[in-house]
Amino acid sequence: MTIRKTLWITLALVAISLPAAAQFAKPDDAIKYRKSALFVMQQNFSRVAAMASGKAPFDPKVAAESAAVAEYVSKLPWAAFTEGSDKGETKSKPEIWKESAKFKEYADKMQGEMVKLSAAAKSGNLDSIKTAVAATGGTCKTCHDAYRKE
Amino acid sequence: MTIRKTLWITLALVAISLPAAAQFAKPDDAIKYRKSALFVMQQNFSRVAAMASGKAPFDPKVAAESAAVAEYVSKLPWAAFTEGSDKGETKSKPEIWKESAKFKEYADKMQGEMVKLSAAAKSGNLDSIKTAVAATGGTCKTCHDAYRKE
Repeated sequence: MTIRKTLWITLALVAISLPAAAQFAKPDDAIKYRKSALFVMQQNFSRVAAMASGKAPFDPKVAAESAAVAEYVSKLPWAAFTEGSDKGETKSKPEIWKESAKFKEYADKMQGEMVKLSAAAKSGNLDSIKTAVAATGGTCKTCHDAYRKE
Repeated sequence: MTIRKTLWITLALVAISLPAAAQFAKPDDAIKYRKSALFVMQQNFSRVAAMASGKAPFDPKVAAESAAVAEYVSKLPWAAFTEGSDKGETKSKPEIWKESAKFKEYADKMQGEMVKLSAAAKSGNLDSIKTAVAATGGTCKTCHDAYRKE
């Protein structure tokens, strides 16, 4: 392989692996975006969790709708952990940007559990929902413990 | 129809038409929820709008993804205009709760245009996207002019 070719491939790989910082006009928008997405997700998840714990009456239709929204929105925050958005109105620990593979692993795990929760809620089986809520909540906690400031 | 039957039907209709206030623990959560959903929507819409206006280079894949997210999230804010959430950290005018039919009409119109924008973005045709962005942006402005404080 020529040096020229190696250089081009390297440049292409760098371009592919760069976070999509350009998708946000400024770091503060990225911070607000991920907080907004996480809040929408949390509100929907909590509604299902309240039914699972008996704090709210079980409404299968609302549970299924809320879990579906939580599943969809769980995909959105991660593109907003852009370079430069570690500073500002955020509880994100700087480790997120240093341990991006581990952070992505935690984020992926949570999204996987949200898929299962949504499937459980769609089935309408409260016991399945309880199991899935516990598993999903565990992935939230693991990531918050590691990467969110008090 | 017996009076008893009429009463039951009336009660059932009231139950169906009540806003889902119970879905939020407190009015502030409802306010934060609708602001969060609208921000996530706006960020995705703006990304496509920037491509339509030539302010950003046209990336068909990003445009399609962003429009799809905007379409999905455009369904979410409305359940959060609950009774009692007219007060607090909100720019919502009190007219929203007095003219709920007109407000719903505006919200529905916007969601309809978002569906068209998402379809246009999926097609990858920039001219269709430009038309749809203008139409969608118009529905945002109409509603903001009527129901959002300065």
